[in-house]
Amino acid sequence: MLNQQSNLDLMFQALADPTRRAMVDRLSRGPASVSELAKPFDMSLPAVVQHLQALEASGLVSSQKVGRVRTCQIEPEALSLAEQWINDRRTTWVRRLDRLGEFLAETEPETRS
Amino acid sequence: MLNQQSNLDLMFQALADPTRRAMVDRLSRGPASVSELAKPFDMSLPAVVQHLQALEASGLVSSQKVGRVRTCQIEPEALSLAEQWINDRRTTWVRRLDRLGEFLAETEPETRS
Repeated sequence: MLNQQSNLDLMFQALADPTRRAMVDRLSRGPASVSELAKPFDMSLPAVVQHLQALEASGLVSSQKVGRVRTCQIEPEALSLAEQWINDRRTTWVRRLDRLGEFLAETEPETRS
Repeated sequence: MLNQQSNLDLMFQALADPTRRAMVDRLSRGPASVSELAKPFDMSLPAVVQHLQALEASGLVSSQKVGRVRTCQIEPEALSLAEQWINDRRTTWVRRLDRLGEFLAETEPETRS
């Protein structure tokens, strides 16, 4: 539970930056090397690597080095975990509204009579 | 677009803290006053208010003061926005895998012959 909490901390932290979200967006369309990932950004390679490390630490991205090329890929299960956390709270809220609506609909005829 | 980017920055930043997630979780079950929200946490009221301000700045929570009581509530559309961002990327990835699977299934007989 504590681990999942700190995973969520790191995941949401990782997603709170536009460069890192752009990297996740790129990787959602397929794996990419570090230099391919760096291409669209006007920043140094070390800065790109630092963003990648934050994504890897959160579990949202993994990478593998083959020869001299490090290839990055998205980890959909980690994305699911963050998505599910938000979805659960939103669903709880929507269900509460539905119950409130039902309650009001049931009590309405009595208040009218 | 730029606004939505900075909204997502603030939303994911707001969700990157376990106290703030616990507040969102509590508010998903219904509106609450600031003191009700503060109750489960072993922290000063100013610290609680600071977390609430981060949640309000992100748009995930809104509050209204009536008399001396400030009541907080969740903003489900903002939650939706953060959830949808993750869902879109995850779905893109899953569709890519599906297409890859179809491609492999189609080319398999040729490689066998």
